[in-house]
Amino acid sequence: MDAKAYYTEDNHGAYQHYDIGDYVLDGGGTINNCQLAYTTFGELNAAKDNVILVPTWFSGSHQIMAQVYVGKGRALDPEKYFIVIINQLGNGLSSSPHTQLANNFPSVQISDDVRAQHQLLTEKFAISSLALVVGGSMGAQQSYEWAVRYPDMVKRAAPIAGTAKVTPHNSIFTQAIIDSITSDPAWQDGRYAISTDVQLGLQRLAKLFTLMGWSAEFFNKERWRALGFSSMDEFITDFMIAYFAPMDANSLLCMAKKWQQSDVSHGRDGDLATVLSGIKAKVFVLSIEGDLMFPPADSEIEQQMIPGSEHHVLQTTDGHFAIFGTDAAFIEQVDGHLKTLLVM
Amino acid sequence: MDAKAYYTEDNHGAYQHYDIGDYVLDGGGTINNCQLAYTTFGELNAAKDNVILVPTWFSGSHQIMAQVYVGKGRALDPEKYFIVIINQLGNGLSSSPHTQLANNFPSVQISDDVRAQHQLLTEKFAISSLALVVGGSMGAQQSYEWAVRYPDMVKRAAPIAGTAKVTPHNSIFTQAIIDSITSDPAWQDGRYAISTDVQLGLQRLAKLFTLMGWSAEFFNKERWRALGFSSMDEFITDFMIAYFAPMDANSLLCMAKKWQQSDVSHGRDGDLATVLSGIKAKVFVLSIEGDLMFPPADSEIEQQMIPGSEHHVLQTTDGHFAIFGTDAAFIEQVDGHLKTLLVM
Repeated sequence: MDAKAYYTEDNHGAYQHYDIGDYVLDGGGTINNCQLAYTTFGELNAAKDNVILVPTWFSGSHQIMAQVYVGKGRALDPEKYFIVIINQLGNGLSSSPHTQLANNFPSVQISDDVRAQHQLLTEKFAISSLALVVGGSMGAQQSYEWAVRYPDMVKRAAPIAGTAKVTPHNSIFTQAIIDSITSDPAWQDGRYAISTDVQLGLQRLAKLFTLMGWSAEFFNKERWRALGFSSMDEFITDFMIAYFAPMDANSLLCMAKKWQQSDVSHGRDGDLATVLSGIKAKVFVLSIEGDLMFPPADSEIEQQMIPGSEHHVLQTTDGHFAIFGTDAAFIEQVDGHLKTLLVM
Repeated sequence: MDAKAYYTEDNHGAYQHYDIGDYVLDGGGTINNCQLAYTTFGELNAAKDNVILVPTWFSGSHQIMAQVYVGKGRALDPEKYFIVIINQLGNGLSSSPHTQLANNFPSVQISDDVRAQHQLLTEKFAISSLALVVGGSMGAQQSYEWAVRYPDMVKRAAPIAGTAKVTPHNSIFTQAIIDSITSDPAWQDGRYAISTDVQLGLQRLAKLFTLMGWSAEFFNKERWRALGFSSMDEFITDFMIAYFAPMDANSLLCMAKKWQQSDVSHGRDGDLATVLSGIKAKVFVLSIEGDLMFPPADSEIEQQMIPGSEHHVLQTTDGHFAIFGTDAAFIEQVDGHLKTLLVM
């Protein structure tokens, strides 16, 4: 499969497009006819106060969020809530290097995603209140930005396994991700003919995510067996490498650079503590024990800057990628915390 | 500086060569006129029972071990002990792709190092007893092999921040290290004219070690300031990248592959537990809190397989590379444990 076949409804499930027009980015560039790909579950109630917004993580789409986090009886219950999952810019379904401009696609920041999502929610649905914004990893970055940018609109926020401001160590990781692609001569400064040309770079990217996304214990316990693989090598090749192989290299780069620059205090008065202190939402910071990308210690520092917030450390042996739903007990913990938060 | 200027006495301090002859490796290859580069401190006593052997870690030489671990009043006190620091095969001073054969250098295993070191100690010095073998990282791998291979000779062993058998997660890391070089087109299957041609690969290798060698907290606390740098970027460029830049790519590969295959149970009867249960030395397993390469949990599992051993977790915020001596309080802990061990 190549990128053209990968970024389709056949592969990711049905979604709508919303055109937010010629969209001027905080970094100065413009995306003409900027499209957000989104999907919804449940019904918007008359009071329009039952909205849950779910942004997406690096390389993910609405599909994984729906599969893992949405369902009857779950915290994100479509029988109670109007759940809007919006694909982040650069993910290949919303406007991305894959959909337009390729290597000329402008630099995107987390704030751009959040402003665009706000435009969709207010213009398309006349929504002025979010019962909850919840996302994992880069979805957590967007959740923090939402709570900071629209403090009166966001009633609750649950950033999972992500930070409001990228840490130095995390920045070193994202740089390695960026390098893995840009160091492939086939990338050709983004002017490759077809993304599968950059397969060696994408393989290195996949291996770096294998290293940092799962935990040492995940491999010690051969947890990949539970995912249907019979050896670690098979897991790395047929799951991790196969997962990233059909994706568009420039689109992955767009997201990785956005991640690396993520910082809710950027362009705002005051430092991180000042900015986070302005959050009015009830915030549950959910981190993952043993997460090599986003260690709980980093989340603890940020959580203590947010008035009335709570920090809950989720237990799993899988590491960061438990957010994929590999560990049912982990997902139960997430659901439990979200249910508690939603009635606060 | 290129590799030719780097692997010199000017740069690493004085050392001797010992020729162990045409050396047949456990993997089947042969190193003709195999040379071990070593240095000694102190005097061998008449009973020849005051010997401390120090093997080296990945990319290191006798110099760093001497600077950080040897000194009057220290655990490794040359006024009491005859301290022999032997450079591992492949490190550029002992026989290596850099010294001979380049890309045709045969595959080397940890067991080859230990057998060669044994030959040096017995032939050259007629030593039949080691008061202690102590090493960090790949030096720990060699220390475990020593205790397993020569149980009656090794009285004490202190593997620091390393394992007896590479873990799956660690193997993923070393594969990324290997890939960082081999994916550089300038590497040319090892047939580069001069190692600085492979500078982009070596830079990626340096960045991976930056990611996994230090801790998130090291960067949060800007601990690189204590090393004399004014920014993280400067630290990465002028310390991490500059450190690896003059090294020989094939020699680094030789060591990385040796590391990735390290396993004291390889080629022996029985599993890891059986093999480790045969150790007669008094063993202090010393791991580092927050070590991303060699987590204490992995060391704990192995330590429990070694009769009469103890596991001590060293406290530092620096991560694995605290073994470089960046944190004086860490080195004090190491010294304290080694002093205790040496009188047991």
